[in-house]
Amino acid sequence: MNCERTGAIFCFGELLLRLSTPPGARFSNAAQMAVNVGGAESNVAALLAQLGHDVEMLSVLPTSALGDLCLAELRRHGVGTASVVRAEGRLGLYFFEPNGAGGRIIYDRHDTAFAAEAGGFDWPTLADRARWFHLSGINLALGKVAADAALTAASAMRAAGVPISFDVNHRASLWEGKSEAELAAVRDLATMANVLFASPLDISRLIRMELRAGSADGRRAAAEAAFSHFPNIQHIASTRRMFDNTGLQIGARFDTRATGSETPSARISNVIDRIGSGDAFAGAVIDGILRGCSPEQCATAGLAAAVAKHGMAGDRWIGTRAELESTDPFNTGDIRR
Amino acid sequence: MNCERTGAIFCFGELLLRLSTPPGARFSNAAQMAVNVGGAESNVAALLAQLGHDVEMLSVLPTSALGDLCLAELRRHGVGTASVVRAEGRLGLYFFEPNGAGGRIIYDRHDTAFAAEAGGFDWPTLADRARWFHLSGINLALGKVAADAALTAASAMRAAGVPISFDVNHRASLWEGKSEAELAAVRDLATMANVLFASPLDISRLIRMELRAGSADGRRAAAEAAFSHFPNIQHIASTRRMFDNTGLQIGARFDTRATGSETPSARISNVIDRIGSGDAFAGAVIDGILRGCSPEQCATAGLAAAVAKHGMAGDRWIGTRAELESTDPFNTGDIRR
Amino acid sequence: MNCERTGAIFCFGELLLRLSTPPGARFSNAAQMAVNVGGAESNVAALLAQLGHDVEMLSVLPTSALGDLCLAELRRHGVGTASVVRAEGRLGLYFFEPNGAGGRIIYDRHDTAFAAEAGGFDWPTLADRARWFHLSGINLALGKVAADAALTAASAMRAAGVPISFDVNHRASLWEGKSEAELAAVRDLATMANVLFASPLDISRLIRMELRAGSADGRRAAAEAAFSHFPNIQHIASTRRMFDNTGLQIGARFDTRATGSETPSARISNVIDRIGSGDAFAGAVIDGILRGCSPEQCATAGLAAAVAKHGMAGDRWIGTRAELESTDPFNTGDIRR
Amino acid sequence: MNCERTGAIFCFGELLLRLSTPPGARFSNAAQMAVNVGGAESNVAALLAQLGHDVEMLSVLPTSALGDLCLAELRRHGVGTASVVRAEGRLGLYFFEPNGAGGRIIYDRHDTAFAAEAGGFDWPTLADRARWFHLSGINLALGKVAADAALTAASAMRAAGVPISFDVNHRASLWEGKSEAELAAVRDLATMANVLFASPLDISRLIRMELRAGSADGRRAAAEAAFSHFPNIQHIASTRRMFDNTGLQIGARFDTRATGSETPSARISNVIDRIGSGDAFAGAVIDGILRGCSPEQCATAGLAAAVAKHGMAGDRWIGTRAELESTDPFNTGDIRR
Amino acid sequence: MNCERTGAIFCFGELLLRLSTPPGARFSNAAQMAVNVGGAESNVAALLAQLGHDVEMLSVLPTSALGDLCLAELRRHGVGTASVVRAEGRLGLYFFEPNGAGGRIIYDRHDTAFAAEAGGFDWPTLADRARWFHLSGINLALGKVAADAALTAASAMRAAGVPISFDVNHRASLWEGKSEAELAAVRDLATMANVLFASPLDISRLIRMELRAGSADGRRAAAEAAFSHFPNIQHIASTRRMFDNTGLQIGARFDTRATGSETPSARISNVIDRIGSGDAFAGAVIDGILRGCSPEQCATAGLAAAVAKHGMAGDRWIGTRAELESTDPFNTGDIRR
Amino acid sequence: MNCERTGAIFCFGELLLRLSTPPGARFSNAAQMAVNVGGAESNVAALLAQLGHDVEMLSVLPTSALGDLCLAELRRHGVGTASVVRAEGRLGLYFFEPNGAGGRIIYDRHDTAFAAEAGGFDWPTLADRARWFHLSGINLALGKVAADAALTAASAMRAAGVPISFDVNHRASLWEGKSEAELAAVRDLATMANVLFASPLDISRLIRMELRAGSADGRRAAAEAAFSHFPNIQHIASTRRMFDNTGLQIGARFDTRATGSETPSARISNVIDRIGSGDAFAGAVIDGILRGCSPEQCATAGLAAAVAKHGMAGDRWIGTRAELESTDPFNTGDIRR
Repeated sequence: MNCERTGAIFCFGELLLRLSTPPGARFSNAAQMAVNVGGAESNVAALLAQLGHDVEMLSVLPTSALGDLCLAELRRHGVGTASVVRAEGRLGLYFFEPNGAGGRIIYDRHDTAFAAEAGGFDWPTLADRARWFHLSGINLALGKVAADAALTAASAMRAAGVPISFDVNHRASLWEGKSEAELAAVRDLATMANVLFASPLDISRLIRMELRAGSADGRRAAAEAAFSHFPNIQHIASTRRMFDNTGLQIGARFDTRATGSETPSARISNVIDRIGSGDAFAGAVIDGILRGCSPEQCATAGLAAAVAKHGMAGDRWIGTRAELESTDPFNTGDIRR
Repeated sequence: MNCERTGAIFCFGELLLRLSTPPGARFSNAAQMAVNVGGAESNVAALLAQLGHDVEMLSVLPTSALGDLCLAELRRHGVGTASVVRAEGRLGLYFFEPNGAGGRIIYDRHDTAFAAEAGGFDWPTLADRARWFHLSGINLALGKVAADAALTAASAMRAAGVPISFDVNHRASLWEGKSEAELAAVRDLATMANVLFASPLDISRLIRMELRAGSADGRRAAAEAAFSHFPNIQHIASTRRMFDNTGLQIGARFDTRATGSETPSARISNVIDRIGSGDAFAGAVIDGILRGCSPEQCATAGLAAAVAKHGMAGDRWIGTRAELESTDPFNTGDIRR
Repeated sequence: MNCERTGAIFCFGELLLRLSTPPGARFSNAAQMAVNVGGAESNVAALLAQLGHDVEMLSVLPTSALGDLCLAELRRHGVGTASVVRAEGRLGLYFFEPNGAGGRIIYDRHDTAFAAEAGGFDWPTLADRARWFHLSGINLALGKVAADAALTAASAMRAAGVPISFDVNHRASLWEGKSEAELAAVRDLATMANVLFASPLDISRLIRMELRAGSADGRRAAAEAAFSHFPNIQHIASTRRMFDNTGLQIGARFDTRATGSETPSARISNVIDRIGSGDAFAGAVIDGILRGCSPEQCATAGLAAAVAKHGMAGDRWIGTRAELESTDPFNTGDIRR
Repeated sequence: MNCERTGAIFCFGELLLRLSTPPGARFSNAAQMAVNVGGAESNVAALLAQLGHDVEMLSVLPTSALGDLCLAELRRHGVGTASVVRAEGRLGLYFFEPNGAGGRIIYDRHDTAFAAEAGGFDWPTLADRARWFHLSGINLALGKVAADAALTAASAMRAAGVPISFDVNHRASLWEGKSEAELAAVRDLATMANVLFASPLDISRLIRMELRAGSADGRRAAAEAAFSHFPNIQHIASTRRMFDNTGLQIGARFDTRATGSETPSARISNVIDRIGSGDAFAGAVIDGILRGCSPEQCATAGLAAAVAKHGMAGDRWIGTRAELESTDPFNTGDIRR
Repeated sequence: MNCERTGAIFCFGELLLRLSTPPGARFSNAAQMAVNVGGAESNVAALLAQLGHDVEMLSVLPTSALGDLCLAELRRHGVGTASVVRAEGRLGLYFFEPNGAGGRIIYDRHDTAFAAEAGGFDWPTLADRARWFHLSGINLALGKVAADAALTAASAMRAAGVPISFDVNHRASLWEGKSEAELAAVRDLATMANVLFASPLDISRLIRMELRAGSADGRRAAAEAAFSHFPNIQHIASTRRMFDNTGLQIGARFDTRATGSETPSARISNVIDRIGSGDAFAGAVIDGILRGCSPEQCATAGLAAAVAKHGMAGDRWIGTRAELESTDPFNTGDIRR
Repeated sequence: MNCERTGAIFCFGELLLRLSTPPGARFSNAAQMAVNVGGAESNVAALLAQLGHDVEMLSVLPTSALGDLCLAELRRHGVGTASVVRAEGRLGLYFFEPNGAGGRIIYDRHDTAFAAEAGGFDWPTLADRARWFHLSGINLALGKVAADAALTAASAMRAAGVPISFDVNHRASLWEGKSEAELAAVRDLATMANVLFASPLDISRLIRMELRAGSADGRRAAAEAAFSHFPNIQHIASTRRMFDNTGLQIGARFDTRATGSETPSARISNVIDRIGSGDAFAGAVIDGILRGCSPEQCATAGLAAAVAKHGMAGDRWIGTRAELESTDPFNTGDIRR
């Protein structure tokens, strides 16, 4: 895995408009919805761009004003938009009803411009100027065009020697009723990837083996099983969330083929918005890998981004490198003056 | 046309979720959107139910919480929901960016539950307990299932002697690229209708004849042309909107085969939300017809509802019969204590 | 107690307008207040209607637009309003200043339309079509007319064999300065009731006996004391709230004459609005009784409704049967996609 | 009339909590209400205090936190509160549904602390340190205690030589069903007053004579009729509001026994909140009288305050003397940088 | 004036944070303020970038998070930020209290990072890749460093043959108490400029000559006087605002040395936010010049942008070229579906 | 220390406008900011005035409308403003980005009217009518004028026998880069003070000695060290904040020369706004001292005010003496009806 390439970090995936009810309202009686731009890969892109990397989004946006909104939001975070395709069609939506620490989501992603036109990229040309390629498993659940595009893209990147990070990002509702052949695409991507974001449970689904994740040892075993199954993977990272009667806690783990590192659990003192915390984690870990950080540093930086994201409204971590570096995920309760 | 039937007023059409930007925001930078339930026929239904009529909505709503929201909103206004069909699928949406007196709309109505399942009504049985049947031309633009359902419904109602009101409700963007055969359905519905909501321009499109609507005489001529073209129509009603350098004004017209009545123009002093003012007009006119009011009374009541609607947020007129009757459309600036 | 009757569930009580300050504001500097419709019995009615029961509210509402607001809100939830009386007069109000987990309330319930006209119902006729009758002790604190109406209603229902549920709903501020004769009415209602919502403390006030509620055994003893005191009661249910240094927790208990069942305490991870959680509990328990559920099922369903209510703004639980059944009160922190 | 007295300007009247729906919402579907403190005399008091006068409010406020809110608001504007009485009881409320230029109001003023305890002032002692006494006719419509207090107060002030300004402030809904004897109190107050705020229509009601107010001459004639009827009145002032198809306009008039002055009509370009504009007018006119301004100056200053008030949310004019003096009521559309 | 250069349009000036009270609130009782990023030159930059031009902002922003906010906002609109300097110090602020069509502004621009560090640009190097240079007279009022930088920049641009547009942007409060020498800098910039944004009144101040602007002829005469005074100016453009009793109207004018064109006045039907309408005008005119449009086209496009800006919250026009081209400034009241 | 003086409690310090982002927003993407008036000494003044003391603020406010806002806010809480100086210049600002239990602050306090004109008070005259004098160490960090004024004021008060309370109120960012001479002023004030608000860490900085504050004994030792260092100090009070995995907890301590008292830690169940909780503590402690309360009572009352403040938006505790006395800091989760 060549971390010394020059070029842009490319993130490939769909952008979505998120519409969220206010705290305490239900879908069935909401009078206002907050508007945010989402999409797992774009969340990763935004974090990496804010940390100073040269990042470009590869996506398809409708020609409507809602597409303009997404484009403006990418630019706002410094994500390059030169390769974004505009096409007739719908923008994917999702409705979010937050509910304290949790909530529920209604997806409305049928027949989007992305699902129709995701095949319109010239991957070999893009690979030439790619430093890194990131995508998530959601692409594989959005129909044949998008799934094929994801596999084609990964192959082209792999052929050109571009490191690939793949976030499994399992969403049960997106995968319901999919055929085994379709699910195989997830494994194909994992086979091509160099960095895998996957929990022990994700791994057990990927390699069809039951794994015990109740201890750090069990989690190391899961990582090792994945390493032996997928020959190109160099790094595996994941978060784990726990509820007990003192509330939500989160920990992070980072494995290489040689060793693994796991943080203690950090208490999330005030959940404003959980969505995108996994993407913030992924982005910070990729940044750590690109900068040659140790497993412990990668896990801790990822955890810091994930914890901080819980306190930020919207799908994306917003901040600067200085802020990320000064975030102590285990103590977020000070006022800095 | 038998106004003495008993039973419910049935309104047939799609319900939509409206998402509107705040005043002064643009789609491309909106952070909040107001949520309203729309749909032209449901707006008519809500007004008539609030005036005390027995009204039932005939529609298809998705099984999701967004469908629940629409159902709750119908109930809120006293509209009967016993015959609403629930089905898997999307809820139609539209995005509204108000802009002072005007604004723009982005429709997102593809592949909705209504468009898929509008055929699932037992029209002859419904006709048995119908007092009135109302629908708009929008149904005809929502795909073959919905268009066929509209025509089937109207035929069944006509066969059972149920009076039919039809609001042409022309939306250029919904009709773009439709074939002539499809457009013929609008004329078919007009042929079956007893009450037609159509401006002189709508009439000229319907009967393919150029008409001059610049004067009251010209508008009467348009009505007469429609009466002679469509043998079942007994009443034609419409509003006319004008902008000049003192702002928005609106007038109303009501024609029978014998005579027509036209109100002066009423100034709209403060536009909060224009959408649904035509539906408020239609509902109040239907109420007038059902109560045997004169053309002048119908026009004035319709105008009062339409003017008042401009001052109400959301798609629907909200009020009581007492309020409607005490609204002077030509003087809306008092504080009543 | 006949759970096989047909007819409607009748809920009898006053509706109130709630005006609540925003989080962190005080009454003395609030610039906005949120508007909600409250009233303990209407909260129970709304939950039962949302679960699919045929429910009717028996109340008196002023003829003003504020009365219209309450009526619309009942309809919204599917509660029948055919027997609601409209009369001149005030709507009762209460002001709520939430304060994290707690808060304070200022009542403004003097001389309301309900207090004046609650005697205007024809109870024997209503009893004929009643499946169930629910009321709370608040009626007894609203003046002679309302108190007499409550007792007359219960007698008529009892005479007709309609099961009665009675929620003691003790409010110290409403009972201050009441005479012993007035307090006797609470015991009279408990004597007629089949289902009693009362905590051990409520029971000790009712039967003037000191009871120890610090353990499950003590709570069972309290229930048994009530059973022996009030011959018609078949079921007693209550919640218990606890604060410790990890925050608010809540548990539920359900007793029959034969046995009792008590849930563990569930942590309330994010309190949006505590008001109405007891009513949500009562409604879900009544639903369980009507469906022949076990004591454990009744207690758990009640707890699930109560816990979920804490996360919903306003006085009422809002949802569907499917949601209630899928609520795990001990784990509310997931995002369901 | 002695404008050289020292001491405080006393304003006597009830304070009210105003709860207003957002623009475009109706009472029957409002989710939020804005909270303001109102009360005609307190609005006058606030303007005069902001202009630098020593002003004290004479009122009764409940001991609740809502009473605290009113007290804090008086202090905020610099109105003295040392003589405000606190008593058990309700705070009067009114609900306001603004509707563009107009709107409607629901009063909820029954059985307030003020209505019960307005008799608790020691008027002769207060008169000793009074520079001016202001009250409105609303006091006379709030029950016997308040009406008697108003008459007693005016007599005491008159006896001590304190100038009295009296704003008729006719509210049809407050006077409905009042006996002729009660209405006589308005005339009694006008008999004692030195300054009368009354439109020609008010005057015609006061002196039971039909008056033609369609022209400046007619309006002068009305003033002269009032002067001849009420021997103590030295100044009469009023505004006139007009709607035509370019919107709301307002003009002002000020009469002495010798002469009258009338401003042209000023266009109100953007009505934020009309309530209290008459009180702002009255306050600015009283200030003009106290400072020995000419009739034209009084009319223009009153008009400036009234026009500016239309652009301010809440019941009160808010500003400084410098702002009042720099307001050109005929040109309010500039941006001052 | 060479409109065929390649490179970026450079806009030089300070960015400001705007804090605005809600409609109807006053500074002295505002509880919330809306946050916008302002600055005349950045408003021009944003419009030009949205129309598709390659635009770069030349400014100094503090290293604080408030500086980050400004930078993100520039990126959002597609304005290049590569040459923005970050420095320790304050961000300039202004407080805006809108008041219907007008309002007032409090500036808080002392000792800003821009005022201290505006001298830190390498103008000759920037000139090499400049297609156009835009600045306003505000720079000249921000202290010696900024004023010198503006003159140095213009000289360097002029030396390199870069066309210069100069918006006089007179702000009385910024110029109060400035010496004659300082005012001379405005004339120096006008001498170097190719395009001048100046009203007849601005021109009369610039050339110290009284001019009559009451007619189109008088306005042409003013333009001709400026052309003869400032030899490099090729185009002069301005808007004129009028209030009469039907509200605010706005017209536009564009002059070349050969001819002038003036639009009729367009009614502004709903003023959301007037600030930045002059900058929107300037941006659209510059776009017209760059594309070789006729004087009439430049005036009309500028007017369309200015009228549309009045309906947009914040300091900047937001839209696309398609929207600008479809804006009819004389008819903004339609709903486009 | 003479607690029997008559006169006003004087609080000397700067007022600031606070602009805070909404929960979950970051400075770099905030669209709204909440406006509050802050300033440590004014927070203390407001609490003491609300408890019924005669309190006067000694400060300098700009002549702008923002200064008017601060003045109105002082009046609102009953704080006397007769001695507030108005002067040309800026109002100090601070920007607050809350983040669950913590957050960050950007100060913008350069060159304020206070910093320029704090020297304009006639301290000996003020001392004559002073009952108490309170100030904080922030004055010493605002430049030479303010620091000199603080020392001059304290000397004058001390000379007149007025008790002085001094809150060290250490703000690292305000003290960065200050010379040792400047820091000596803090010690000079501590030398003159009778009541010191200082944590063990503050004490260790003041007396340049390392102290162990991990236990109650260590904290007593710190107090004793301060007592022996500063001969006039009679009382020392402080809060201590702790985070563990169950959230934020706070305890209080009060020491006299004879003895100390320390409360247990109270859990803060819902942090709305932490800012000003130290000032609320200080105010309640001063009230306790003035009323001759025991150390335990002072510590508990201070803790109650500090805990309650966490649940109030804005910089100040808002309430009444009855509320303060009924606050149980260890149990804040009830609803009082």
